[in-house]
Amino acid sequence: MTAWRADLLSDTLTQPTPAMRAAMGAAVVGDDVFGEDPTVRRLEEQVASRLGHEAGLFTPTGSMANQLALRLHVRPGEEMLCDALAHVVRAELGAAAVFSGISSRTWSAPRGLLDPADPLALVQTGVGPYQVCTALVVVENTHNFGGGTVQPLWAIRQVRAATRGLGVAMHLDGARLWNAHVATGVGLAEMGSHFDTVSVCLSKGLGAPVGSVLVGSQAAIDEARVWRKRYGGGMRQVGILAAAGLYALDKHVDRLAEDHARARRAAVAFAEACPASVEPAMVETNIVMLATGATGWTAAEFVAASGQQGVRAYAAAPGAVRLVWHLDVDDAATAYAIDVLTALLRERPR
Amino acid sequence: MTAWRADLLSDTLTQPTPAMRAAMGAAVVGDDVFGEDPTVRRLEEQVASRLGHEAGLFTPTGSMANQLALRLHVRPGEEMLCDALAHVVRAELGAAAVFSGISSRTWSAPRGLLDPADPLALVQTGVGPYQVCTALVVVENTHNFGGGTVQPLWAIRQVRAATRGLGVAMHLDGARLWNAHVATGVGLAEMGSHFDTVSVCLSKGLGAPVGSVLVGSQAAIDEARVWRKRYGGGMRQVGILAAAGLYALDKHVDRLAEDHARARRAAVAFAEACPASVEPAMVETNIVMLATGATGWTAAEFVAASGQQGVRAYAAAPGAVRLVWHLDVDDAATAYAIDVLTALLRERPR
Amino acid sequence: MTAWRADLLSDTLTQPTPAMRAAMGAAVVGDDVFGEDPTVRRLEEQVASRLGHEAGLFTPTGSMANQLALRLHVRPGEEMLCDALAHVVRAELGAAAVFSGISSRTWSAPRGLLDPADPLALVQTGVGPYQVCTALVVVENTHNFGGGTVQPLWAIRQVRAATRGLGVAMHLDGARLWNAHVATGVGLAEMGSHFDTVSVCLSKGLGAPVGSVLVGSQAAIDEARVWRKRYGGGMRQVGILAAAGLYALDKHVDRLAEDHARARRAAVAFAEACPASVEPAMVETNIVMLATGATGWTAAEFVAASGQQGVRAYAAAPGAVRLVWHLDVDDAATAYAIDVLTALLRERPR
Amino acid sequence: MTAWRADLLSDTLTQPTPAMRAAMGAAVVGDDVFGEDPTVRRLEEQVASRLGHEAGLFTPTGSMANQLALRLHVRPGEEMLCDALAHVVRAELGAAAVFSGISSRTWSAPRGLLDPADPLALVQTGVGPYQVCTALVVVENTHNFGGGTVQPLWAIRQVRAATRGLGVAMHLDGARLWNAHVATGVGLAEMGSHFDTVSVCLSKGLGAPVGSVLVGSQAAIDEARVWRKRYGGGMRQVGILAAAGLYALDKHVDRLAEDHARARRAAVAFAEACPASVEPAMVETNIVMLATGATGWTAAEFVAASGQQGVRAYAAAPGAVRLVWHLDVDDAATAYAIDVLTALLRERPR
Repeated sequence: MTAWRADLLSDTLTQPTPAMRAAMGAAVVGDDVFGEDPTVRRLEEQVASRLGHEAGLFTPTGSMANQLALRLHVRPGEEMLCDALAHVVRAELGAAAVFSGISSRTWSAPRGLLDPADPLALVQTGVGPYQVCTALVVVENTHNFGGGTVQPLWAIRQVRAATRGLGVAMHLDGARLWNAHVATGVGLAEMGSHFDTVSVCLSKGLGAPVGSVLVGSQAAIDEARVWRKRYGGGMRQVGILAAAGLYALDKHVDRLAEDHARARRAAVAFAEACPASVEPAMVETNIVMLATGATGWTAAEFVAASGQQGVRAYAAAPGAVRLVWHLDVDDAATAYAIDVLTALLRERPR
Repeated sequence: MTAWRADLLSDTLTQPTPAMRAAMGAAVVGDDVFGEDPTVRRLEEQVASRLGHEAGLFTPTGSMANQLALRLHVRPGEEMLCDALAHVVRAELGAAAVFSGISSRTWSAPRGLLDPADPLALVQTGVGPYQVCTALVVVENTHNFGGGTVQPLWAIRQVRAATRGLGVAMHLDGARLWNAHVATGVGLAEMGSHFDTVSVCLSKGLGAPVGSVLVGSQAAIDEARVWRKRYGGGMRQVGILAAAGLYALDKHVDRLAEDHARARRAAVAFAEACPASVEPAMVETNIVMLATGATGWTAAEFVAASGQQGVRAYAAAPGAVRLVWHLDVDDAATAYAIDVLTALLRERPR
Repeated sequence: MTAWRADLLSDTLTQPTPAMRAAMGAAVVGDDVFGEDPTVRRLEEQVASRLGHEAGLFTPTGSMANQLALRLHVRPGEEMLCDALAHVVRAELGAAAVFSGISSRTWSAPRGLLDPADPLALVQTGVGPYQVCTALVVVENTHNFGGGTVQPLWAIRQVRAATRGLGVAMHLDGARLWNAHVATGVGLAEMGSHFDTVSVCLSKGLGAPVGSVLVGSQAAIDEARVWRKRYGGGMRQVGILAAAGLYALDKHVDRLAEDHARARRAAVAFAEACPASVEPAMVETNIVMLATGATGWTAAEFVAASGQQGVRAYAAAPGAVRLVWHLDVDDAATAYAIDVLTALLRERPR
Repeated sequence: MTAWRADLLSDTLTQPTPAMRAAMGAAVVGDDVFGEDPTVRRLEEQVASRLGHEAGLFTPTGSMANQLALRLHVRPGEEMLCDALAHVVRAELGAAAVFSGISSRTWSAPRGLLDPADPLALVQTGVGPYQVCTALVVVENTHNFGGGTVQPLWAIRQVRAATRGLGVAMHLDGARLWNAHVATGVGLAEMGSHFDTVSVCLSKGLGAPVGSVLVGSQAAIDEARVWRKRYGGGMRQVGILAAAGLYALDKHVDRLAEDHARARRAAVAFAEACPASVEPAMVETNIVMLATGATGWTAAEFVAASGQQGVRAYAAAPGAVRLVWHLDVDDAATAYAIDVLTALLRERPR
């Protein structure tokens, strides 16, 4: 709405393209609560298939997809483990505890990177009568507040190997898994294979207006479908939205490489302007996390100053500014943002 | 999908019309989580205004709109009162208790009709240290499982007058309030004025593919907006769907009279075929509830038999078959359904 | 504490007798959280055995015993059914919904008496994807707010027969089951045999200072034991209290007949003074529920007036005063209460 | 029960002394649900007064005292912060999430010691619409799984100073606060002054059979009292137990120094036998946490081996054995335990 010259607030902001709107307009739809929407069904099957899982479920948001998954794995009185900046424990407004009674313990992970020692120091099972039992470990890939970090496969494999025998499940919050896939070339099915359930978003990098998909076993998805209705997420002729997701899956995955390249290009420029603000080699996907500590700016001040020049950013923490590249930020907008932000990084705040 | 010749399963089944699809295709959208979707905002304002309330909130479903409202009014440890067939306590899968810890007590209401004596016999306040306190009375208008019944305004007013001084709130589940409005000519604002919050659906009689709106005071809606995100109902460029709602508000309200006329016409025919099956004078809106007890059919058998001839119905209870008229059931389909169902009512099941 | 001449507020008020205090003082105890308190174990076994169930669990209160049972039977998203004045839904402060996410629907039962048609009109199973499923029916015997009513065995049997095949469980809130047993002569095991779980109180008619016992299958009690700890009910050397329970089981069951006789004697006197206030034939156990409507008193006024003369009563509803006989109300106190209350029933309030 | 020659499993195991039994036997009691038990009231007042708070509430367990406090401070959808080994998040079976919908994030604290940087890195407020808000920081003093560690007052003061302005509350889990008080000489009121609520146990070091007390402002305790009933913790003539608590407060606080001296004596012996197993200087109170890693024993094996010789210990983690001194472990038992355990530490397991 506001005429930002570069809107780097979030990749959730993308406008549906004309072709995507055409796909929505032509969608064949039915009442999905009765399982009669063929477009939704096609989307669910296609995402499940790509991720190597049996079945899929369309949800209005990634938060609901995650929350349904957590509930499947953790019974009231049990706990999940994740890092302290994970979306499921920090940015879903406490939903896991409020709605599902899920207790949580967390570890601190620099840049959100998974170190197997962290969950393995906390996990405990078979201690039921006296202590809380761990039922789930959650991994976020790429890691949003870590700065679009790609999780190392070896670490995931190691946690999986150590916890599987204990009966502890694993859920992948893959809101930006497409970015990890494009950045590393590792197959989606390979990445999905280490988890009992995976959620992916269609409305972030892929540019669809609304929606996420949760995948897992048929039994898990059947149960999640009933709970989706209980959460108030059972929509009717929602194939309208699913059609945008199918279009995005077809056309908008590979192009994420452009977002990554622009983010990296910007990071290199920022590092030149202020080496302490970012390490370009760590910008693997579409997110740049700027440390403002060395610049004299607080994150809030920096965001305000850049906003006045038409570049929108997000104060992710008192000393961290998040910049996200996406479908609606092209080379020109990137160049403009680099100009504005490097200037701010060079000058001291007034 | 299936080629039913008359699909009376539910008014949730309607297909978006070409004009409605065009409205969706042309919708101006933004990220509604950041409050930046102008089409959603316009829909919320328009619905709130029509119902005489300060503010509105778009939700993916009527269930979520209701659940948000219940939570606003009832704190953990308090109770709501409603009739035993109310959607909020029977058809939302126990969500009020699971997610909001809301205790409930119910009364039995023939045809779902509100009798003020029923809630007033149960309501209790100021008994906090030893007993559960009543915080909310819910009224459903029209009443779905009661057979599309219109609630008498005098009864609503009487309950309101008796409970207001006790600090007990009232919520109107108005999923089909449009039908009550068209059937009675009573203004929406008048009907809304007796309640603290009202939910209405766009995806039932109005024929939009997805969505409901909750209205109430600005403070209530502000709080509901945060909880909507917690439930996983905070969608992004959802103006696509809101555009369909706006179109439906403009074009599809008055035409509900046609659904009502067809339902009444069918009820008259059913009563001729089997007087014990329905009382036509009680068919006030778009729902016919057939009592199969006198016919020798169980509801399930009756539904199966009618389905074999292309008429889809819903077994709402062991001896009750629900038929719902809507946008996609025209005069011809109605005539066909009358032929098939009256024949079944006349014959004994084999 | 206050020197009431007749304290009919509740049978929870009883003072431990000297012999009961001696039993507590001599109790052999251990840490019951580790299962090492022999006195608690003996109490649990004895109550389970009397009620014909496999295992028992000591709890600090009857509310906790009930809440543990409800949770065993009803999963989040399912419902329980009971009458609208049942202790579990009216006098446990909404705990079933708050702590266990249990939805509830209720019926109205004059005097709390179970009529099988009431639960059977509400029960529904196998409707999972769209509606709430019934998992439990609760019966209270004797019925507190119904006036100490004894439930008819035939009605219990009929509900059991009709719901068992549907997989619906039954819980008996037997806080005053001892009174029903003594009043009818029906065996405790016979009364317990129709239910999956039964709770009984030691601190009401039996006169122990604290405690209840939940009985059921070994598996159910094992699970309840873990949840008791989660509720904060896992006490340590609590054999001190269990010893009082064992003493009461031995010495204070048969004497309940005295309480019943005194309550009946008082009811006869009240009916003479004001026939509309009570029907003596309906006073089966230790509770008299006086209807004050015909007297011109509100319940609160009546309670205040009787209190001024040293007789304590409880305003159970705007027009109902509850009087409860127990261990500490002897013939003299009964005679005094009769004098005071009949005088009040005869006079009009000023 | 079992004839352990030294039972170091837990300080919850203590038997009431004859004098304590006499105090219980003579207790003046009433129905505490109606606020009529003078002994309970005296205990609540005395504990509140010692800790410098307005009011107190007797609870059946420390878990319930803690859970009531957490609920007072954290609304559904908010979070609490504590270390990952804190009793409230690890040893109360997930109760905070299940019953109160409290989300939690944790930090790792060597020996359970509070480092202000840890909570302050996590705390976040005013982020309501998008992220979870912190409402509470919990500190455990002494720290059970940290090995009876005493928390540094400067650290508590620093966290308090930093969070107070943000509206973040602080709760002290003082199950063993008496030990911290005796070990450091710091006054109870001084230690209590930095917290909004404090829970203390009577059934651990103090040797009472059952019970804890929660203290806080009058308003907080009034609200907690209602919730205690909702949890099923509202007991009747529970002055029987409170009398033991009053006795213990009078007679068993100062003697905790003996437990501390014995624990330290044992630690010195263990360190001589196996220097890597424990650092005696860190044994400040009544708990010794033995690291078995260097010995070749797993904790479970070590506990089994010591048990065979009549010394009971607790495997607190795969490589940690917890030993707890208390009222029922005298010098002779300590000497015996030292003999057995040092021998085990010296030998390699077979």
